[in-house]
Amino acid sequence: MSVYSRLSALGVTLPQVTPSVALFVPFVRTGRLIFVSGHIARRNGEPWVGRLGEQITVADGQAAARGIAIDLLAALHTATAYLDSITRIVKLVVLVNSAPTFTEPHLVANGASELLHQVFGDRGPHARTAIGVAQLPLGACVEIELIAEVA
Amino acid sequence: MSVYSRLSALGVTLPQVTPSVALFVPFVRTGRLIFVSGHIARRNGEPWVGRLGEQITVADGQAAARGIAIDLLAALHTATAYLDSITRIVKLVVLVNSAPTFTEPHLVANGASELLHQVFGDRGPHARTAIGVAQLPLGACVEIELIAEVA
Amino acid sequence: MSVYSRLSALGVTLPQVTPSVALFVPFVRTGRLIFVSGHIARRNGEPWVGRLGEQITVADGQAAARGIAIDLLAALHTATAYLDSITRIVKLVVLVNSAPTFTEPHLVANGASELLHQVFGDRGPHARTAIGVAQLPLGACVEIELIAEVA
Repeated sequence: MSVYSRLSALGVTLPQVTPSVALFVPFVRTGRLIFVSGHIARRNGEPWVGRLGEQITVADGQAAARGIAIDLLAALHTATAYLDSITRIVKLVVLVNSAPTFTEPHLVANGASELLHQVFGDRGPHARTAIGVAQLPLGACVEIELIAEVA
Repeated sequence: MSVYSRLSALGVTLPQVTPSVALFVPFVRTGRLIFVSGHIARRNGEPWVGRLGEQITVADGQAAARGIAIDLLAALHTATAYLDSITRIVKLVVLVNSAPTFTEPHLVANGASELLHQVFGDRGPHARTAIGVAQLPLGACVEIELIAEVA
Repeated sequence: MSVYSRLSALGVTLPQVTPSVALFVPFVRTGRLIFVSGHIARRNGEPWVGRLGEQITVADGQAAARGIAIDLLAALHTATAYLDSITRIVKLVVLVNSAPTFTEPHLVANGASELLHQVFGDRGPHARTAIGVAQLPLGACVEIELIAEVA
Protein backbone atom coordinates (compact mmCIF):
# COMPACT_ATOMS: atom_id res chain seq x y z
CA MET A 1 0.00 0.00 0.00
CA SER A 2 1.59 3.29 -1.05
CA VAL A 3 2.05 6.27 1.20
CA TYR A 4 -0.48 8.16 -0.92
CA SER A 5 -3.06 5.37 -0.49
CA ARG A 6 -2.56 5.46 3.26
CA LEU A 7 -2.96 9.22 3.33
CA SER A 8 -6.12 8.86 1.30
CA ALA A 9 -7.45 6.16 3.64
CA LEU A 10 -6.82 8.56 6.55
CA GLY A 11 -8.69 11.30 4.70
CA VAL A 12 -5.57 13.44 4.64
CA THR A 13 -5.07 15.92 1.81
CA LEU A 14 -1.58 17.40 1.54
CA PRO A 15 -1.55 21.20 1.55
CA GLN A 16 0.34 23.39 -0.90
CA VAL A 17 3.84 24.15 0.29
CA THR A 18 4.38 27.86 0.87
CA PRO A 19 6.74 29.14 -1.82
CA SER A 20 10.23 29.70 -0.45
CA VAL A 21 11.34 33.14 0.51
CA ALA A 22 14.83 33.85 -0.67
CA LEU A 23 16.49 33.62 2.74
CA PHE A 24 15.54 30.15 3.79
CA VAL A 25 13.62 27.23 2.35
CA PRO A 26 11.22 24.52 3.55
CA PHE A 27 13.80 21.76 3.04
CA VAL A 28 17.33 21.02 1.86
CA ARG A 29 18.49 17.71 0.46
CA THR A 30 22.09 16.63 0.98
CA GLY A 31 23.12 13.15 -0.07
CA ARG A 32 20.37 10.78 1.03
CA LEU A 33 19.09 13.09 3.77
CA ILE A 34 16.36 15.72 3.59
CA PHE A 35 16.43 18.32 6.35
CA VAL A 36 12.96 19.87 6.71
CA SER A 37 12.67 23.29 8.37
CA GLY A 38 10.80 23.75 11.62
CA HIS A 39 7.09 24.03 10.76
CA ILE A 40 4.67 25.69 13.19
CA ALA A 41 1.16 24.54 14.06
CA ARG A 42 -1.65 26.08 12.01
CA ARG A 43 -5.42 25.89 12.20
CA ASN A 44 -7.63 27.20 9.41
CA GLY A 45 -4.53 28.60 7.77
CA GLU A 46 -3.56 30.75 10.79
CA PRO A 47 -0.90 30.05 13.41
CA TRP A 48 -2.39 27.91 16.20
CA VAL A 49 -1.48 30.15 19.10
CA GLY A 50 -1.13 29.25 22.77
CA ARG A 51 0.86 27.42 25.35
CA LEU A 52 0.60 23.92 26.73
CA GLY A 53 -0.19 24.06 30.42
CA GLU A 54 -2.21 27.23 29.82
CA GLN A 55 -4.75 27.63 26.99
CA ILE A 56 -3.84 24.49 25.04
CA THR A 57 -4.77 20.99 26.23
CA VAL A 58 -2.65 17.91 25.56
CA ALA A 59 -5.33 16.67 23.15
CA ASP A 60 -5.22 19.94 21.21
CA GLY A 61 -1.42 19.88 21.26
CA GLN A 62 -1.53 16.38 19.77
CA ALA A 63 -3.93 17.55 17.06
CA ALA A 64 -1.59 20.46 16.36
CA ALA A 65 1.39 18.08 16.13
CA ARG A 66 -0.56 15.81 13.78
CA GLY A 67 -1.37 18.79 11.58
CA ILE A 68 2.29 19.77 11.45
CA ALA A 69 3.19 16.21 10.45
CA ILE A 70 0.88 16.61 7.46
CA ASP A 71 2.63 19.85 6.52
CA LEU A 72 5.99 18.10 6.86
CA LEU A 73 4.72 15.37 4.53
CA ALA A 74 3.71 18.05 2.04
CA ALA A 75 7.27 19.41 2.20
CA LEU A 76 8.67 15.90 1.70
CA HIS A 77 6.31 15.36 -1.22
CA THR A 78 7.61 18.56 -2.81
CA ALA A 79 11.20 17.48 -2.08
CA THR A 80 10.88 14.01 -3.55
CA ALA A 81 7.92 14.22 -5.94
CA TYR A 82 7.17 10.71 -4.66
CA LEU A 83 6.76 10.02 -0.94
CA ASP A 84 7.30 6.28 -1.43
CA SER A 85 10.95 7.04 -2.26
CA ILE A 86 11.43 7.88 1.41
CA THR A 87 13.19 4.96 3.03
CA ARG A 88 13.11 6.18 6.61
CA ILE A 89 11.86 8.97 8.82
CA VAL A 90 15.16 9.53 10.64
CA LYS A 91 14.42 12.08 13.33
CA LEU A 92 11.92 14.54 14.75
CA VAL A 93 12.55 17.44 17.08
CA VAL A 94 9.24 18.46 18.65
CA LEU A 95 9.21 21.90 20.27
CA VAL A 96 6.27 22.53 22.57
CA ASN A 97 5.40 26.06 23.70
CA SER A 98 5.20 25.30 27.41
CA ALA A 99 4.25 26.89 30.67
CA PRO A 100 7.11 26.22 33.13
CA THR A 101 4.92 23.56 34.77
CA PHE A 102 4.07 21.53 31.66
CA THR A 103 6.02 18.28 31.71
CA GLU A 104 4.39 16.26 28.91
CA PRO A 105 5.91 17.46 25.62
CA HIS A 106 6.45 13.79 24.72
CA LEU A 107 2.68 13.18 24.76
CA VAL A 108 2.17 16.14 22.44
CA ALA A 109 4.88 14.75 20.15
CA ASN A 110 2.96 11.49 19.83
CA GLY A 111 0.42 13.30 17.66
CA ALA A 112 3.06 13.62 14.95
CA SER A 113 4.75 10.27 15.54
CA GLU A 114 1.45 8.39 15.27
CA LEU A 115 0.60 9.89 11.91
CA LEU A 116 4.05 9.10 10.53
CA HIS A 117 3.68 5.54 11.77
CA GLN A 118 0.26 5.21 10.13
CA VAL A 119 1.53 6.58 6.84
CA PHE A 120 5.03 5.07 6.60
CA GLY A 121 4.62 1.78 8.49
CA ASP A 122 8.01 0.15 9.10
CA ARG A 123 9.78 3.19 7.66
CA GLY A 124 8.03 5.49 10.16
CA PRO A 125 9.66 4.91 13.57
CA HIS A 126 12.19 7.66 14.15
CA ALA A 127 14.61 9.02 16.70
CA ARG A 128 12.90 11.83 18.58
CA THR A 129 13.54 14.66 21.00
CA ALA A 130 10.62 16.45 22.71
CA ILE A 131 11.29 19.77 24.43
CA GLY A 132 9.28 22.41 26.28
CA VAL A 133 10.35 25.84 25.04
CA ALA A 134 9.69 29.42 26.17
CA GLN A 135 8.06 30.61 22.94
CA LEU A 136 7.74 29.86 19.23
CA PRO A 137 7.38 31.90 16.04
CA LEU A 138 4.07 33.80 15.95
CA GLY A 139 3.13 32.31 19.31
CA ALA A 140 2.43 28.87 17.82
CA CYS A 141 1.77 26.08 20.31
CA VAL A 142 4.01 23.50 18.59
CA GLU A 143 6.85 23.50 16.05
CA ILE A 144 8.44 20.38 14.51
CA GLU A 145 11.52 19.80 12.36
CA LEU A 146 12.30 16.52 10.61
CA ILE A 147 15.07 14.58 8.91
CA ALA A 148 14.18 11.90 6.35
CA GLU A 149 16.26 9.45 4.32
CA VAL A 150 15.55 8.93 0.62
CA ALA A 151 16.48 6.11 -1.71
CA MET B 1 42.44 0.22 25.03
CA SER B 2 38.91 -0.57 23.91
CA VAL B 3 35.87 1.52 24.75
CA TYR B 4 34.61 -1.37 26.89
CA SER B 5 37.90 -1.50 28.85
CA ARG B 6 37.67 2.22 29.51
CA LEU B 7 34.08 1.90 30.68
CA SER B 8 35.15 -0.91 32.95
CA ALA B 9 38.06 1.16 34.32
CA LEU B 10 35.57 3.93 35.08
CA GLY B 11 33.33 1.45 36.86
CA VAL B 12 30.54 2.12 34.38
CA THR B 13 28.03 -0.64 33.59
CA LEU B 14 25.82 0.00 30.57
CA PRO B 15 22.11 -0.25 31.35
CA GLN B 16 19.59 -2.21 29.33
CA VAL B 17 18.04 -0.14 26.57
CA THR B 18 14.30 0.30 26.99
CA PRO B 19 12.56 -1.70 24.27
CA SER B 20 11.25 0.56 21.54
CA VAL B 21 7.64 1.54 21.47
CA ALA B 22 6.19 1.36 18.01
CA LEU B 23 6.01 5.11 17.44
CA PHE B 24 9.60 6.08 17.91
CA VAL B 25 12.87 4.39 18.69
CA PRO B 26 16.03 5.05 20.72
CA PHE B 27 18.16 5.50 17.58
CA VAL B 28 18.10 5.42 13.80
CA ARG B 29 21.08 4.65 11.60
CA THR B 30 21.34 6.25 8.18
CA GLY B 31 24.52 5.79 6.17
CA ARG B 32 27.43 6.21 8.56
CA LEU B 33 25.43 8.30 11.05
CA ILE B 34 23.46 7.16 14.08
CA PHE B 35 20.90 9.65 15.39
CA VAL B 36 20.15 8.89 19.04
CA SER B 37 16.87 10.15 20.52
CA GLY B 38 16.81 12.68 23.32
CA HIS B 39 17.36 10.79 26.59
CA ILE B 40 16.27 12.31 29.89
CA ALA B 41 18.16 12.23 33.19
CA ARG B 42 17.29 9.37 35.53
CA ARG B 43 18.32 8.48 39.07
CA ASN B 44 17.54 5.10 40.59
CA GLY B 45 15.50 4.33 37.49
CA GLU B 46 13.17 7.30 37.94
CA PRO B 47 13.24 10.64 36.07
CA TRP B 48 15.65 13.03 37.84
CA VAL B 49 13.21 15.90 38.30
CA GLY B 50 13.98 19.56 38.86
CA ARG B 51 15.30 22.73 37.39
CA LEU B 52 18.77 24.23 37.30
CA GLY B 53 18.78 27.53 39.14
CA GLU B 54 16.13 26.15 41.50
CA GLN B 55 16.35 22.69 43.13
CA ILE B 56 19.23 21.31 41.06
CA THR B 57 22.82 22.46 41.53
CA VAL B 58 25.37 22.63 38.72
CA ALA B 59 27.19 19.65 40.25
CA ASP B 60 23.98 17.60 40.27
CA GLY B 61 23.22 18.73 36.73
CA GLN B 62 26.66 17.51 35.66
CA ALA B 63 26.05 14.17 37.35
CA ALA B 64 22.71 13.94 35.56
CA ALA B 65 24.37 14.73 32.23
CA ARG B 66 27.05 12.12 32.88
CA GLY B 67 24.33 9.56 33.62
CA ILE B 68 22.57 10.39 30.37
CA ALA B 69 25.85 9.95 28.49
CA ILE B 70 25.99 6.41 29.86
CA ASP B 71 22.45 5.78 28.62
CA LEU B 72 23.42 7.18 25.22
CA LEU B 73 26.39 4.79 25.16
CA ALA B 74 24.01 1.93 25.92
CA ALA B 75 21.90 2.99 22.94
CA LEU B 76 25.01 3.18 20.75
CA HIS B 77 26.08 -0.25 21.97
CA THR B 78 22.69 -1.62 20.97
CA ALA B 79 22.94 0.16 17.62
CA THR B 80 26.40 -1.07 16.74
CA ALA B 81 26.89 -4.22 18.85
CA TYR B 82 30.47 -2.97 19.21
CA LEU B 83 31.20 0.52 20.54
CA ASP B 84 34.72 0.49 19.09
CA SER B 85 33.19 0.66 15.62
CA ILE B 86 32.22 4.25 16.42
CA THR B 87 34.67 6.50 14.62
CA ARG B 88 33.46 9.81 16.03
CA ILE B 89 31.00 11.37 18.40
CA VAL B 90 29.72 14.00 15.99
CA LYS B 91 27.37 16.19 17.99
CA LEU B 92 25.50 16.65 21.25
CA VAL B 93 22.51 18.86 21.96
CA VAL B 94 22.25 19.35 25.71
CA LEU B 95 18.89 20.64 26.94
CA VAL B 96 18.90 21.95 30.49
CA ASN B 97 15.65 22.54 32.38
CA SER B 98 16.39 26.09 33.48
CA ALA B 99 15.02 28.82 35.66
CA PRO B 100 15.04 32.02 33.58
CA THR B 101 18.10 33.17 35.55
CA PHE B 102 20.30 30.09 35.00
CA THR B 103 23.03 30.94 32.50
CA GLU B 104 25.38 27.94 32.79
CA PRO B 105 23.90 25.14 30.67
CA HIS B 106 27.38 24.71 29.13
CA LEU B 107 28.80 23.72 32.53
CA VAL B 108 26.05 21.14 32.95
CA ALA B 109 26.82 19.82 29.47
CA ASN B 110 30.43 19.20 30.47
CA GLY B 111 29.24 16.28 32.59
CA ALA B 112 28.36 14.41 29.40
CA SER B 113 31.24 15.70 27.29
CA GLU B 114 33.81 14.63 29.90
CA LEU B 115 32.56 11.06 30.02
CA LEU B 116 32.58 10.79 26.23
CA HIS B 117 36.13 12.13 26.20
CA GLN B 118 37.22 9.61 28.84
CA VAL B 119 35.63 6.73 26.97
CA PHE B 120 36.33 7.60 23.33
CA GLY B 121 39.62 9.53 23.57
CA ASP B 122 40.45 11.18 20.24
CA ARG B 123 37.12 10.08 18.81
CA GLY B 124 35.24 11.81 21.64
CA PRO B 125 35.42 15.57 21.01
CA HIS B 126 32.16 16.66 19.39
CA ALA B 127 30.28 19.69 18.16
CA ARG B 128 27.91 20.80 20.89
CA THR B 129 24.99 23.08 21.61
CA ALA B 130 23.88 23.76 25.19
CA ILE B 131 20.48 25.36 25.78
CA GLY B 132 18.33 26.36 28.74
CA VAL B 133 14.76 25.24 28.10
CA ALA B 134 11.40 25.88 29.79
CA GLN B 135 10.63 22.24 30.61
CA LEU B 136 11.47 18.67 29.67
CA PRO B 137 9.60 15.36 29.50
CA LEU B 138 8.45 14.20 32.97
CA GLY B 139 10.10 17.25 34.51
CA ALA B 140 13.63 15.87 34.01
CA CYS B 141 16.47 18.27 34.77
CA VAL B 142 18.49 17.45 31.63
CA GLU B 143 17.90 15.83 28.23
CA ILE B 144 20.59 15.03 25.65
CA GLU B 145 20.50 13.88 22.03
CA LEU B 146 23.53 12.67 20.10
CA ILE B 147 24.83 11.97 16.60
CA ALA B 148 27.66 9.47 16.13
CA GLU B 149 29.60 8.28 13.09
CA VAL B 150 30.29 4.59 12.56
CA ALA B 151 32.87 2.82 10.41
CA MET C 1 32.62 36.18 -7.20
CA SER C 2 34.19 34.21 -4.41
CA VAL C 3 32.83 33.99 -0.90
CA TYR C 4 35.90 35.87 0.31
CA SER C 5 35.29 38.68 -2.21
CA ARG C 6 31.70 38.98 -1.03
CA LEU C 7 32.80 39.10 2.60
CA SER C 8 35.28 41.79 1.68
CA ALA C 9 32.63 43.78 -0.21
CA LEU C 10 30.45 43.60 2.92
CA GLY C 11 33.38 44.85 5.01
CA VAL C 12 33.34 41.62 7.03
CA THR C 13 36.59 40.36 8.56
CA LEU C 14 36.49 36.81 9.87
CA PRO C 15 37.55 36.51 13.52
CA GLN C 16 40.04 34.00 14.86
CA VAL C 17 38.38 30.78 15.93
CA THR C 18 38.76 30.09 19.64
CA PRO C 19 41.12 27.13 20.05
CA SER C 20 39.25 23.96 20.96
CA VAL C 21 39.09 22.81 24.51
CA ALA C 22 39.61 19.11 24.83
CA LEU C 23 35.99 18.24 25.60
CA PHE C 24 34.23 19.63 22.59
CA VAL C 25 35.18 21.43 19.40
CA PRO C 26 33.83 24.21 17.18
CA PHE C 27 32.94 21.79 14.37
CA VAL C 28 33.05 18.16 13.30
CA ARG C 29 33.16 16.96 9.71
CA THR C 30 31.56 13.65 8.81
CA GLY C 31 31.34 12.67 5.16
CA ARG C 32 30.26 15.76 3.23
CA LEU C 33 28.64 17.41 6.26
CA ILE C 34 30.16 19.83 8.74
CA PHE C 35 28.29 20.17 12.04
CA VAL C 36 29.17 23.51 13.65
CA SER C 37 28.67 23.90 17.42
CA GLY C 38 26.18 26.38 18.82
CA HIS C 39 27.87 29.79 18.86
CA ILE C 40 26.61 32.54 21.17
CA ALA C 41 26.25 36.23 20.36
CA ARG C 42 29.21 38.43 21.23
CA ARG C 43 29.81 42.16 21.15
CA ASN C 44 33.26 43.66 21.59
CA GLY C 45 34.48 40.17 22.43
CA GLU C 46 32.09 39.72 25.36
CA PRO C 47 28.85 37.70 25.44
CA TRP C 48 25.98 39.89 24.23
CA VAL C 49 23.71 39.44 27.22
CA GLY C 50 19.96 39.94 27.44
CA ARG C 51 16.60 38.67 26.44
CA LEU C 52 14.37 39.46 23.49
CA GLY C 53 11.14 41.00 24.71
CA GLU C 54 13.05 42.61 27.58
CA GLN C 55 16.35 44.47 27.14
CA ILE C 56 17.09 43.40 23.56
CA THR C 57 15.18 44.81 20.57
CA VAL C 58 14.47 42.83 17.41
CA ALA C 59 16.96 45.03 15.54
CA ASP C 60 19.67 44.28 18.10
CA GLY C 61 18.77 40.59 18.02
CA GLN C 62 19.20 40.63 14.25
CA ALA C 63 22.58 42.32 14.60
CA ALA C 64 23.55 39.68 17.15
CA ALA C 65 22.43 36.90 14.79
CA ARG C 66 24.41 38.48 11.94
CA GLY C 67 27.49 38.59 14.14
CA ILE C 68 27.08 34.92 15.02
CA ALA C 69 26.79 34.08 11.32
CA ILE C 70 30.22 35.70 10.85
CA ASP C 71 31.62 33.55 13.66
CA LEU C 72 30.06 30.47 12.06
CA LEU C 73 31.74 31.42 8.77
CA ALA C 74 35.05 31.69 10.60
CA ALA C 75 34.51 28.16 11.93
CA LEU C 76 33.65 26.93 8.41
CA HIS C 77 36.76 28.66 7.05
CA THR C 78 38.85 26.83 9.65
CA ALA C 79 37.07 23.57 8.81
CA THR C 80 37.52 23.81 5.07
CA ALA C 81 40.48 26.19 4.58
CA TYR C 82 38.44 27.45 1.59
CA LEU C 83 34.87 28.67 2.02
CA ASP C 84 34.13 28.29 -1.69
CA SER C 85 34.34 24.53 -1.24
CA ILE C 86 31.04 24.75 0.65
CA THR C 87 28.33 23.58 -1.70
CA ARG C 88 25.34 24.34 0.53
CA ILE C 89 24.36 25.81 3.85
CA VAL C 90 22.09 22.95 4.89
CA LYS C 91 20.47 24.04 8.12
CA LEU C 92 20.40 26.59 10.93
CA VAL C 93 18.90 26.26 14.38
CA VAL C 94 18.45 29.74 15.84
CA LEU C 95 17.92 29.86 19.60
CA VAL C 96 16.61 33.16 20.90
CA ASN C 97 16.75 34.00 24.62
CA SER C 98 13.12 35.00 24.97
CA ALA C 99 10.73 36.50 27.46
CA PRO C 100 7.62 34.30 27.50
CA THR C 101 5.81 36.95 25.46
CA PHE C 102 8.33 37.29 22.62
CA THR C 103 6.93 35.63 19.51
CA GLU C 104 9.33 36.77 16.76
CA PRO C 105 12.41 34.52 16.94
CA HIS C 106 12.08 34.08 13.16
CA LEU C 107 12.70 37.80 12.62
CA VAL C 108 15.82 37.61 14.78
CA ALA C 109 16.96 34.59 12.76
CA ASN C 110 16.76 36.63 9.56
CA GLY C 111 19.86 38.52 10.67
CA ALA C 112 21.89 35.35 10.17
CA SER C 113 20.02 34.07 7.13
CA GLU C 114 20.48 37.36 5.27
CA LEU C 115 24.23 37.38 5.73
CA LEU C 116 24.52 33.78 4.54
CA HIS C 117 22.43 34.66 1.49
CA GLN C 118 24.63 37.67 0.73
CA VAL C 119 27.80 35.63 1.07
CA PHE C 120 26.81 32.29 -0.47
CA GLY C 121 24.21 33.33 -3.06
CA ASP C 122 22.43 30.27 -4.47
CA ARG C 123 24.24 28.02 -2.01
CA GLY C 124 22.97 30.07 0.94
CA PRO C 125 19.26 29.25 1.38
CA HIS C 126 18.92 26.70 4.17
CA ALA C 127 16.40 24.77 6.20
CA ARG C 128 15.83 26.63 9.45
CA THR C 129 14.24 26.33 12.86
CA ALA C 130 13.80 29.39 15.08
CA ILE C 131 12.98 28.87 18.76
CA GLY C 132 12.45 31.01 21.84
CA VAL C 133 14.34 29.46 24.75
CA ALA C 134 14.45 30.08 28.52
CA GLN C 135 18.17 30.91 28.73
CA LEU C 136 21.47 30.50 26.92
CA PRO C 137 25.12 30.05 27.93
CA LEU C 138 26.48 33.11 29.77
CA GLY C 139 23.12 34.85 29.32
CA ALA C 140 23.69 35.46 25.59
CA CYS C 141 20.71 36.82 23.66
CA VAL C 142 21.09 34.46 20.67
CA GLU C 143 22.84 31.17 19.90
CA ILE C 144 23.03 29.51 16.46
CA GLU C 145 24.20 26.11 15.25
CA LEU C 146 24.72 25.22 11.59
CA ILE C 147 25.15 22.29 9.22
CA ALA C 148 26.97 22.82 5.92
CA GLU C 149 27.71 20.55 2.96
CA VAL C 150 31.17 20.49 1.39
CA ALA C 151 32.34 19.32 -2.02
